[in-house]
Amino acid sequence: MFNIAVAQSGGPTAAINASLAGVFSGAEAYHEVDEIFGSENGIEGIIHNKLLNLRSIIMDERDKQLLMKTPSTILGSCRFKLKDFEEDEENYRKILDTFKRHNIKAFFYIGGNDSMDTVMKLDRYFKAKGVDIRVVGVPKTIDNDVTETDHTPGFGSAAKYVATSLQEIIRDSRVYSIPSVTIVEIMGRDAGWLAASSCVLRANGEPAPHMIYLPESDFSPEKYLEDVRQAQLRYKAVIVAVSEGIRCETGGFSSELTDAFGHKYLSGIGKYLEKYTSEHIGCKVRSIELNVMQRCSSHIASLTDIEEAERIGRAAISAALTEKKSGVMMTFKRISNNPYRVEIVTADINKIANREKKFPREWINTEGNNVTIDALNYFLPLIQGEPEIEYRNGIPVHFRLNQ
Amino acid sequence: MFNIAVAQSGGPTAAINASLAGVFSGAEAYHEVDEIFGSENGIEGIIHNKLLNLRSIIMDERDKQLLMKTPSTILGSCRFKLKDFEEDEENYRKILDTFKRHNIKAFFYIGGNDSMDTVMKLDRYFKAKGVDIRVVGVPKTIDNDVTETDHTPGFGSAAKYVATSLQEIIRDSRVYSIPSVTIVEIMGRDAGWLAASSCVLRANGEPAPHMIYLPESDFSPEKYLEDVRQAQLRYKAVIVAVSEGIRCETGGFSSELTDAFGHKYLSGIGKYLEKYTSEHIGCKVRSIELNVMQRCSSHIASLTDIEEAERIGRAAISAALTEKKSGVMMTFKRISNNPYRVEIVTADINKIANREKKFPREWINTEGNNVTIDALNYFLPLIQGEPEIEYRNGIPVHFRLNQ
Repeated sequence: MFNIAVAQSGGPTAAINASLAGVFSGAEAYHEVDEIFGSENGIEGIIHNKLLNLRSIIMDERDKQLLMKTPSTILGSCRFKLKDFEEDEENYRKILDTFKRHNIKAFFYIGGNDSMDTVMKLDRYFKAKGVDIRVVGVPKTIDNDVTETDHTPGFGSAAKYVATSLQEIIRDSRVYSIPSVTIVEIMGRDAGWLAASSCVLRANGEPAPHMIYLPESDFSPEKYLEDVRQAQLRYKAVIVAVSEGIRCETGGFSSELTDAFGHKYLSGIGKYLEKYTSEHIGCKVRSIELNVMQRCSSHIASLTDIEEAERIGRAAISAALTEKKSGVMMTFKRISNNPYRVEIVTADINKIANREKKFPREWINTEGNNVTIDALNYFLPLIQGEPEIEYRNGIPVHFRLNQ
Repeated sequence: MFNIAVAQSGGPTAAINASLAGVFSGAEAYHEVDEIFGSENGIEGIIHNKLLNLRSIIMDERDKQLLMKTPSTILGSCRFKLKDFEEDEENYRKILDTFKRHNIKAFFYIGGNDSMDTVMKLDRYFKAKGVDIRVVGVPKTIDNDVTETDHTPGFGSAAKYVATSLQEIIRDSRVYSIPSVTIVEIMGRDAGWLAASSCVLRANGEPAPHMIYLPESDFSPEKYLEDVRQAQLRYKAVIVAVSEGIRCETGGFSSELTDAFGHKYLSGIGKYLEKYTSEHIGCKVRSIELNVMQRCSSHIASLTDIEEAERIGRAAISAALTEKKSGVMMTFKRISNNPYRVEIVTADINKIANREKKFPREWINTEGNNVTIDALNYFLPLIQGEPEIEYRNGIPVHFRLNQ
């Protein structure tokens, strides 16, 4: 008999707790596993020996179901970067100490690109020290920018929230008889996957958003104005989806914003484009930031995403304990779009840590202001299905540690 | 046989189309009614004779069901204020001309305080001219600030969206180990009903939002800082719900904002408090504006709200055609909280038009930073139940005029 530990890291998503439930269920089904520890605030909890016994927290099937539909991370998260152990071994020693003290033979880290750096470094350290503690990464991020995997848990739910909200904003924007431009700012600092996913509305015959701008394509303010003017010839209410990370051909937008107004902290690209459009087009313009709701809206999560997040967590247990793998991350491999089928396989963590998967340039149209049908076909399966939500007093019930 | 007309006015809500469906269904069931006209963009469509034949648009029960779950106004809206007819009769003549030309004997106007001004003026004009055209108002607004009625259709759905999103934001805010303050800006320029409704989370044992600030109570920035500091003694992640219309004891906030930073257009009270809190408390601070999603999020609408909106629209037909009333607005009268029961009755439009129902001062705590249990009991019934949403391609299906 031995124990395992699991931790959650990076920014919240609607599916990260589903992966935790998956790791827990996989471990529960594995007879050699005794205790299942959850680490508070990611790797920090391992360093500081702050472990929770998950068997006394996740008590039954209902707890698991609630956990899967609860956004963010019940164990807390962190933004902690380990130094190379050759440079500073102290934290590694503390980690090893916690693992040894609690007889932990496998560690599962649910996180994004940065968190996979921790998986890589820990695996390298344990191998260098000849210690048999397996380290396996479970991907999560709404940014969908993790390499080697077709997509990441958390992304599908964020995309479903963006599509649903955007469609409602479209209805809202068409209400008055005057021309208007509505700019919707969508998360994605370096990769435009989430903004690009707003194209899914097309599948239901909705022409908006009329333009989609991504960090993967250079943004020209002049071309943007021309795009808006062209769209206004056809549409009274023009809708623009813009990734927060778009970049100007002549340099960064954020620096321009700071220079011009001196108040960078007050706003992002949406507010900037609102002002810019208002000055140059002169019609009614507004901007909407979907903000953190994009990453935590469990009430409109994608069932496909939540189920996959659970499955990939469960598969991590098999990879570490049955296949005895370490220094890997679990990945989705897409077999087909229609019917949608994915397989879960492992990938070498060295090919993943600190890298970033950009939205493919070939899925951006030649004008650089929208995406292609291939993108639509890629996104659609990821937002299918709706989890059954339990309501109490008209409000979704969440799993809470200190209930 | 005669015809009727209906129009929608003011800002969008998630329930205004349900009231349209109610007026339509009521008229359909009334055998003397021949055509049911919908006016484009509120009263403007009547003035300019832009009428749609709703019988050829809402074809069957499925259309009605979809319409009830579609946010915003399918007929479009307006912000048009009629002058008194003694001052300028031109538009009144045009309206009368449209009504006579189309044999319209009753007109139903779905809207808020301002729209009820139109109901009042038209009724007064028709009575002065001795014309038997009945004018009946159907309330709607997410602000819940219409007098004479217990609450307004549209409010319950907005409150359910706010509570659901706020709970997710609370989960999101607790993820890191560092102290933080999250400020959520909620609609309500002059009345704080919607921000106040965020107290419903208490019914499920959630202590956040820890403070709720409303326009009905003077706001002191110094007292606010003290409130935050007190809350930080108990909570790592402090959550503040703030109505967009809060006012400072020493004057308006908006003017202060403009003076201090010179960029009023860039932000509202949320951003202001973010900066203010950051400067004086110094921890991680962020602000979130729930924006137009508050008024159009049909996917998380309150079933109670949607059903009541339909019922009150239907009742307007009885009031005008059976009871032969005019110059009235339909209202909800609450009979009991538990079990929740309301009656629909009419009220004199002169008691409603251009007035505003504030959040009761006696439902604000003595500290002016939260609301009482009476408020909670008032709000809870309004957010109960969830409409069954039809999804296509993973996205809610909306009723669209030009499908």
